[in-house]
Formats: sequence, C-alpha cells, structure tokens
Amino acid sequence: MKTRIGILGYGNLGRGIECAIKQSPDMELVAVFTRRAPETVKILTEGVKVYSVDDAVKMKDEIDVMILCGGSATDLPKQTPEYAKYFTVVDSFDTHAKIPQHFAAADAAAKEGGNIAVISCGWDPGMFSLNRLYANAILPVGNDYTFWGKGVSQGHSDAIRRVEGVANAKQYTVPVESALEAVRNGENPELTTRQKHTRECFVVAKEGADLAKIENEIKTMPNYFADYDTTVNFITEEELKRDHSGIPHGGVVIRSGKTGINTKNDHIIEFKLTLESNPEFTSSVLVAYARAAYRMCLEGAVGCKTVFDIAPAYLHPASPEELRKNLL
Amino acid sequence: MKTRIGILGYGNLGRGIECAIKQSPDMELVAVFTRRAPETVKILTEGVKVYSVDDAVKMKDEIDVMILCGGSATDLPKQTPEYAKYFTVVDSFDTHAKIPQHFAAADAAAKEGGNIAVISCGWDPGMFSLNRLYANAILPVGNDYTFWGKGVSQGHSDAIRRVEGVANAKQYTVPVESALEAVRNGENPELTTRQKHTRECFVVAKEGADLAKIENEIKTMPNYFADYDTTVNFITEEELKRDHSGIPHGGVVIRSGKTGINTKNDHIIEFKLTLESNPEFTSSVLVAYARAAYRMCLEGAVGCKTVFDIAPAYLHPASPEELRKNLL
Repeated sequence: MKTRIGILGYGNLGRGIECAIKQSPDMELVAVFTRRAPETVKILTEGVKVYSVDDAVKMKDEIDVMILCGGSATDLPKQTPEYAKYFTVVDSFDTHAKIPQHFAAADAAAKEGGNIAVISCGWDPGMFSLNRLYANAILPVGNDYTFWGKGVSQGHSDAIRRVEGVANAKQYTVPVESALEAVRNGENPELTTRQKHTRECFVVAKEGADLAKIENEIKTMPNYFADYDTTVNFITEEELKRDHSGIPHGGVVIRSGKTGINTKNDHIIEFKLTLESNPEFTSSVLVAYARAAYRMCLEGAVGCKTVFDIAPAYLHPASPEELRKNLL
Repeated sequence: MKTRIGILGYGNLGRGIECAIKQSPDMELVAVFTRRAPETVKILTEGVKVYSVDDAVKMKDEIDVMILCGGSATDLPKQTPEYAKYFTVVDSFDTHAKIPQHFAAADAAAKEGGNIAVISCGWDPGMFSLNRLYANAILPVGNDYTFWGKGVSQGHSDAIRRVEGVANAKQYTVPVESALEAVRNGENPELTTRQKHTRECFVVAKEGADLAKIENEIKTMPNYFADYDTTVNFITEEELKRDHSGIPHGGVVIRSGKTGINTKNDHIIEFKLTLESNPEFTSSVLVAYARAAYRMCLEGAVGCKTVFDIAPAYLHPASPEELRKNLL
C-alpha cells in the first residue's frame, strides 16, 4: 500500500513535490489543494484532482501526509498548526529566528490531533542544519562556516524590483572563493559579511529610467546590499529570460575542528550542494521526510519533529537490512 | 552526572577516544582495559586506572558505555557480541561485507543483556554511510560515487612491508582529480577502479635489496595494486619518519541526481572529509555515538543500532531547544 500524499499550495514547490512523488514508487499523490479556483489549476499527474483548500479537512481519511507548500512569511505560521490538527504534515518553514515559536505552535496542534508535524525541511534549514549538528557533535572544538550560492535569492530579487525605474531583476548570491579556500585550508578565518559573499544583480530598467540612480539605490540599500560588494548589470528583458530564468542555488557548510593531544590535528568536514532547481531539491527533501513522518506516525509518535529528531533510516524506502547491506 | 566511559583496547583509537572525552564536558573516562600487562600501559588521563580486560565485566556497574577499540579482522567479531551482554557498547567495525552478520551477533547479545550495541561508527562506514543514505533518499534517481584519500591505507602499507627486501613502507590512496571533477560537473561517468584512485608508495628497502624487483612485485600485486596506477618511491628510514609519520585520510561521497519534469535538473550533493588523523576522527565519531547510545539506553531502547537508526539530536550534548535555536 502506497503512502497517500496531499499537496497544499501549487506553486514551484508544489510542482516539485509532484515530480518527486513520481520518483518514489512507495508514494502516490491523491489530491492537490489550492486557494485559487481549482478548475484553473492544471497539474502534471493524470487522474488526480485539484480541490479548494476549503475541502482539505473533509479528505483527512484519504491522505496520509499533507505536504504544506506555502511561504514562510505568512502562510506556514497559520497553515502548519491549522492542518496538523487533522493531518500528519510536513513543511519547509525557513525563517530561522522564528523556528522556536513555529515549533511550539505546530507541536501543540499535532499533539491535539494525534499527528506528526515535521517542520523546516529543505536544505537550509534542513540538510545544512543536519550537517551543522553532526559536525558539531563530532568535533566539539572548532568553527562553523556556512556559505550560500551561487544561487538566486528571491528576496533580494524582489527588493530590486521595488526600486523605482526597475522593470525586472534577478539577484545571485555568490560565495567569495578566497574565503572558502581559507576555510578549507583550516585557517579558521574570522569573516565579515562582505568577505563571505558578493551580490550580482541583473536588472531590466524601464524605458528612460536613470540607470546611475538605480544602481546607486541598489548598492546602498540597507540590509539587502549595503554590507556587500554588489555588481549591477543592466540587461534587456529578453536577456533576462534567456540567461536567467533558472532557480539554481546551493552552498557549503564547513566545520573546521581540532582533535588530539594539545588539539594538534586539524579536520575539515564539508557538505556542499549544487542545485539546478532550488524548489525541486527542497521538494525532494520534503517528500523523503513525508515518508519518515508517516512511518513514525504508524509507530505511534506524535508532536512536532525536525530533521534533528528523525533517524535517517526512516527517510529511505528500503528495509533496514537492505540499507545496512547496500549503503552502510 | 557525566556519562561514564570505558575504553577497551589502548592503541591509536583508544588514545583518540581519551582525547575526544577531554573535549566532551558531559563525559568522563573511568577505566581503560588492555590485553597487555596493565602496569606497562601509560595513559594521558590522571587518576584513571588501567585494568586487564579480564576485569572488565566486574566493572559493569561503574561504566555506562564501553567503547571497543579492537580491530575489525579478529577482535570486534568476538568482542562486540561478548561485551554487549554486559555493557552498552560502541564499535568501529569496518568490514563492509560482514556487517550483516556482525549486526546479527551484536543484536542478539545486546538484547540478551538489555543493552544497546552501536556498530560500524567512524567515517566509512559511518559518516560516509549517512551521507549515502540521506542523498539516496532525497535523490532517488542518480548515481553514487565514493572517493577515498588522500590518505594512508594501513592494509596496503602492510602488504608492501611483506614484500621481500622491504624494511618499511607507507602507502597513500589518492583520488584522481579529473574523475572527481567529472562527477562534480554532473557528467555521471562510469569509472573503472584505475580511473578513480592512484596509489603512491614510499618504500624503505633493506640494504642490498633489488629495487627493480621490489617495485615490480608491488605494482603487480593482485587486489592491492595490480588494478591501479601505482608509483613507487624509494626513500630512507629517516625520510619516512620525517615526512610520512602522520595518519591522514579522508575522501568524498557524491550523489549526482536528477529531478523535475523529464528529470531535467541536475543536483550534486557532496560530503568531503579532510582528516589530519584518521584514528582521532574515528574516535570522535565513536564518542558522539557513545553519548547517543547511552541516551537511547536510558529511554529503554535495546539491541544493535547503526548510524542509520539514531536520530541526530542524540549525538549532541545540547538540549533539543538549544539545537533548534542554534543549529537548525
């Protein structure tokens, strides 16, 4: 019997979930829920219906895990506690500073419903967090480094689009290669914000806009760009579509630690992701954790869980025996 | 109250455990057990006694976790099942092909004793296995690659030392950089043994030995060297001591996978270790899993576990709240 998955919210992430389920023979998509008019939403999977979110709770007995594909700013803080009352849910909540309160709300709701809520799955938080935890546990004396990119930052692209005279824009976060090398060499550098990442902007200006003014406004924008070395490239809408339509991302988590008598031996643990599609990779993580959540649910576990609380074997469809034989 | 650790076997690994415990404020070393005459073994920790292995079982109420530091060939297949009857144990059993039978023996003994036995901790098996599992669960469509080195292979060094005319030797396993690059570029190459690693040998010959004969014998040695591009460098004993006395190792696990409609997007998940001391890093992994084993034991879990069965949060001394706040 396959694990029956519902998708709530059908944007890039929801489509990614749908594709990831197709790669998972032990799972099946049973319904997609949307806030739009359901008849206007076309999905990729034949025979699967699109419903209004208002009908989700009615289908609680037909869905084993509901994957919540809303945004972290306003959707998930409401949706996760709301749906955890009725479903085992998985989300990709990624506002690091608000994880404790999101956990508390999801935990209370999941316990009320006798369900599991897995929050903050994805790659950061998610796979990057896991690697920080493992590496810190193994090498307690050392330093952590996280570099992001090269990849598209949606938040920074949006910020540029709000600048007067800008028609469209895409922003890449790029790690500074020399900083990365220093960390890999065990130099344990102290790095400022500016020393870790640069920001590359590709901007389509409106006709007649003052390019120098746009460039200055971007480069001096507080929080988003002022603390970084930022380059602004003006291009046409056609060039933006042709060369910058992807959503790549990735990054590196490094722990540089010391062991032994007088801590004389250096060790570097590096985890690196190079992702051609940020939302599709995040979706793939969510689907693996949906599998884990359902298995743990069948064992009677309830409440909110994160990647830290879930034994790795739950994520993979193979039996423990096969995993030990083939992957250990 | 600190977790009380016993070390059974005091070689490179045992000394590494001792150093790793010093970096762990929540753990304390309470005893070292040796097959040698205890009075001949000097350890680094003041106030801790060295006992004969024959006295180990008598101390079962004073030790929370016994870390078994024997070898995989003959020690651990006997020791792990033997001591799992009396202690929660952790080992670094690394004969991949024999893991299923080692698991079965350790599981039966641990269940008999009401203990936990964590087997095959270290980096391969261990951290590399974890990364294979996570990456395979997330990207079910793709290819796995494992490269080892640059690092010292004890088995290959020993094999060279058995060649007639050889006084001493050290062998490094070295990944082929161009193969690694092809994998990182998502080219999904099919690689032969020869295309993945080279072998670098540093050999001290006995006086008057036939160097050409030694070199030929090494390069054509079946299993160990015949399938590799091998270089043999003759050096003096002094040079060997000066330049090759370390025990570095490491390697890379890569999953190259595809997602999305028509699996058109490529993703690379890479986990890389660069270790200045192979045994000290392995020891650090063992100590983190000793912490996990004891915590799981307190919760009533019994039987054999591997890194696949242990939720990451058990490895780190901080509380779940702190982990979520600081590392997620």
